[in-house]
Amino acid sequence: MFEATKVGRSVSKEEYKEQQEELRTQLLVVQRELRGSQIPLIVLIAGVEGAGKGEVVNRLHEWLDTRGVQTFAFWDESDEERERPRYWRFWRALPARGEIAILFGGWYQAPIEHRFRGLCNDAELDAELNRIIEFEQMLVEDGALIVKFWFHMSEADQKTRLKELARDDRSRWKMLPEKSRFSEHYAAFERVAERVIRHTDRGCAPWYLIEAADRRYRDLTVGKTLLHVMRARLAEASGGTTHETAADALELPASTSAQITLLDRLDLEQGLPAEDYKRLLKHYQAELNELAWAAYNKRRSTVLVFEGMDASGKGGTIRRIAQAVDARLYRAIPVAAPTDEERAHHYLWRFWRHIPRAGRMTIYDRSWYGRVLVERVEGFAKPAEWRRAYSEINRFEEQLVDSGIILLKFWLQISLDEQLQRFRERESVPYKRYKITDEDWRNREKWPLYQEAVNEMIARTSTQYAAWTLIEGNDKRHARIKVLRTICETMAEALKTPPQPRTGYWPCGDKRTEQGNSKAAKAEANG
Amino acid sequence: MFEATKVGRSVSKEEYKEQQEELRTQLLVVQRELRGSQIPLIVLIAGVEGAGKGEVVNRLHEWLDTRGVQTFAFWDESDEERERPRYWRFWRALPARGEIAILFGGWYQAPIEHRFRGLCNDAELDAELNRIIEFEQMLVEDGALIVKFWFHMSEADQKTRLKELARDDRSRWKMLPEKSRFSEHYAAFERVAERVIRHTDRGCAPWYLIEAADRRYRDLTVGKTLLHVMRARLAEASGGTTHETAADALELPASTSAQITLLDRLDLEQGLPAEDYKRLLKHYQAELNELAWAAYNKRRSTVLVFEGMDASGKGGTIRRIAQAVDARLYRAIPVAAPTDEERAHHYLWRFWRHIPRAGRMTIYDRSWYGRVLVERVEGFAKPAEWRRAYSEINRFEEQLVDSGIILLKFWLQISLDEQLQRFRERESVPYKRYKITDEDWRNREKWPLYQEAVNEMIARTSTQYAAWTLIEGNDKRHARIKVLRTICETMAEALKTPPQPRTGYWPCGDKRTEQGNSKAAKAEANG
Repeated sequence: MFEATKVGRSVSKEEYKEQQEELRTQLLVVQRELRGSQIPLIVLIAGVEGAGKGEVVNRLHEWLDTRGVQTFAFWDESDEERERPRYWRFWRALPARGEIAILFGGWYQAPIEHRFRGLCNDAELDAELNRIIEFEQMLVEDGALIVKFWFHMSEADQKTRLKELARDDRSRWKMLPEKSRFSEHYAAFERVAERVIRHTDRGCAPWYLIEAADRRYRDLTVGKTLLHVMRARLAEASGGTTHETAADALELPASTSAQITLLDRLDLEQGLPAEDYKRLLKHYQAELNELAWAAYNKRRSTVLVFEGMDASGKGGTIRRIAQAVDARLYRAIPVAAPTDEERAHHYLWRFWRHIPRAGRMTIYDRSWYGRVLVERVEGFAKPAEWRRAYSEINRFEEQLVDSGIILLKFWLQISLDEQLQRFRERESVPYKRYKITDEDWRNREKWPLYQEAVNEMIARTSTQYAAWTLIEGNDKRHARIKVLRTICETMAEALKTPPQPRTGYWPCGDKRTEQGNSKAAKAEANG
Repeated sequence: MFEATKVGRSVSKEEYKEQQEELRTQLLVVQRELRGSQIPLIVLIAGVEGAGKGEVVNRLHEWLDTRGVQTFAFWDESDEERERPRYWRFWRALPARGEIAILFGGWYQAPIEHRFRGLCNDAELDAELNRIIEFEQMLVEDGALIVKFWFHMSEADQKTRLKELARDDRSRWKMLPEKSRFSEHYAAFERVAERVIRHTDRGCAPWYLIEAADRRYRDLTVGKTLLHVMRARLAEASGGTTHETAADALELPASTSAQITLLDRLDLEQGLPAEDYKRLLKHYQAELNELAWAAYNKRRSTVLVFEGMDASGKGGTIRRIAQAVDARLYRAIPVAAPTDEERAHHYLWRFWRHIPRAGRMTIYDRSWYGRVLVERVEGFAKPAEWRRAYSEINRFEEQLVDSGIILLKFWLQISLDEQLQRFRERESVPYKRYKITDEDWRNREKWPLYQEAVNEMIARTSTQYAAWTLIEGNDKRHARIKVLRTICETMAEALKTPPQPRTGYWPCGDKRTEQGNSKAAKAEANG
């Protein structure tokens, strides 16, 4: 989930100067409009330590007219607060209609801190997050605009930043005391943060994740996004665009270096010599064969998902897997247009059908991600439909993983030139010609739209339990070996331990019957 | 919450016969319309044991055209099911567009059973319920219509019914094995059921609570409600009324005995002789005085809420309380029209302001319930606004109770005649004349609308942690003493034990700082 906040986006001094002036003027205009409206604006500032949350708030105070803007930090509770229900302090901080409240951490601070410190468990955290969702929804239904910013950076960047900073005594985020445990702490905090953000990232009060390593990029992006969101909401209030079309994406500064994406960061030219390829292919295919049988014996299922542009090498890669695995153990599902029966159900229904039995493997050649790729780009799904699909898909995959399934998702990335070359090759080879159609050529024209969709897909559906593996695909040999190696390593690792449910109290796999029966029987005997 | 399913509603044989025929015809017509639509219909059947869930399903099969209707019971998982993610079995049962699936228990069966048997705790149950909410929302967003029926009856009725029934071996609800523990089991099951229903009663997939003691009432109400909901949804699909106006209330059979309400069941003529009144008043006022000081010493706050029609005796009753409690310990808040500042915030904001500090008492003379009473009846709040207020209020009160506050809510009920008499009396007594205005007379005309709103308010906001106390108010002496006695008994009981949070892991009251500080310090020292 945080991959997209670690790509090294930045804005130069000159670009910043240039764009800041315009932004300030516009922010003041929109703030004035807001004042005349019935909309209270709540800006929530959160993120990792050292991301400069205080700096951002100071910047906002500099840019906005401070009349009508109030800032609240929620440090230790006062006597007055402690003697009342927990949320009393937040109700006190809520802005009146037309005004702005900037909240440090807000209602997220305590739950994140408590979970990080082990004062509560995941189920208790989730319960608290649901209370937050209801609270925010209540405010939004009453007309409030809630904008939540999360500032993030890579482990290395954070380390550097924290060294720069003199420790601020008043900070409550006293994480990372010892250098030796920095990585551990970083990972633990990120785990909590992902859970919190994923759980509370709702259409009515979305999170905006911002890379905080470069201060100029960070501040400009906050300002521009805030401006955009306020404008959209004011337009909606005066009967303009509907909430559905209001984008929940960041407004990026107008600088190339500020718009770098994850896919841009891939080195597509990585290659593998033919001899190495042959040797490694043999090696990993043999290993995969054994692992598939081991998974069968341990009753662990595997789901492999392959996505990529036309001619990105999905078919060839899947064939190399199929060669390795006993035909009784796997099914490959090529996903094309849905059947009548499938069309009469929810779009996930057709994928649920093919979920493997215990110990088997299903390989999806294209998958449920069509919803946010082809259906989005071609307009087969409405914006509201593909937007909500991200969380639907996350939930779906969570259920798969929770039940003990080993889930792997591959995105095969090739360059536009490489695709052209492969198309031409296909046309020239008789037995490959059937693979190329007019539609493939048309799709090429939509390349940038697809790339945008892919970037968003990866950012929104790369979760800790089901991360995307990005494959540099210009060299087929490199791509195939990287896929095979990733599958082998992941399966070998997963088969070492029995599956653990990530959410809920239900046991996985074989234990399900066991516990269900024995515990229930026991309870009944006692009851 | 279940109060309204225990009032003894019934339908006579003749009435049933008469109304059934018409209903069947209409159901078949609507089912045909549904078939031509894009709407899959999911009917969920749940409730207490012995409520006749099987009978209801058989009745529906009798009334509907069985082509296009499929029924699923979720007994023990099959091998096929156990080897896949838990929800696989539910996905298999989902109806295609235009078809109907009737689900026994559905996705609610296991969580309720597990919680009842102690296989999971409240937080784990809530987490599972949130998964259910998301699942249902996903289906609804995809066009599905979900109708959830909960069949309920009083403890006595259930006991009788279970005696009548030969035990059905296939039933999974093997509750209540021993007679001696019947009450305990009944209460425990009801507690779980309330939690589940309250949590999952969303606008997009509401629960319909039906009294199941009388079979004819039960079946007719199911049929009529189902008909009504289907019609509303079909009208909406064809661009008719919006979802907002679709009622989520039961469609009752056209019989007086089928429309009895909770308020109808009150014996308003209960009286108290003047001598007894004097003695008891003195007694309880003295007790209340001591209890208020005891609460102060134990730092337990109290919130009293008084609601009732004009001239129902709220003021007089509150004065009797005020006489008893030291003026430094309580504040009485008369709730009239909001101030400008209050109007610029969420409607609950003005009530949060007056939440008492530790050990104090706040008496609300009218309250947040104005949202679902006067604002509903007079149209000051839109239907969507007052409809969602029920759960907002439940959540609000849950927070109060969770923080250790002793919360009591009184509804003072008088008859229309008694009100008239009191109005006349007020007009005739000079110093009381200011209390009566033209508006009071106008409000009398809306009496039936108010009574409807009160009934719904009590049904939807009488929770286990904040139940309504209904006061028979025609005799002021009886009313006042009943209020005072209830307060004294509840406070005395509550002060015996320190408060326990019902939800979440946060400690209450004084413990909050204690645990927060010490645990956090400890964790930090270790970290």
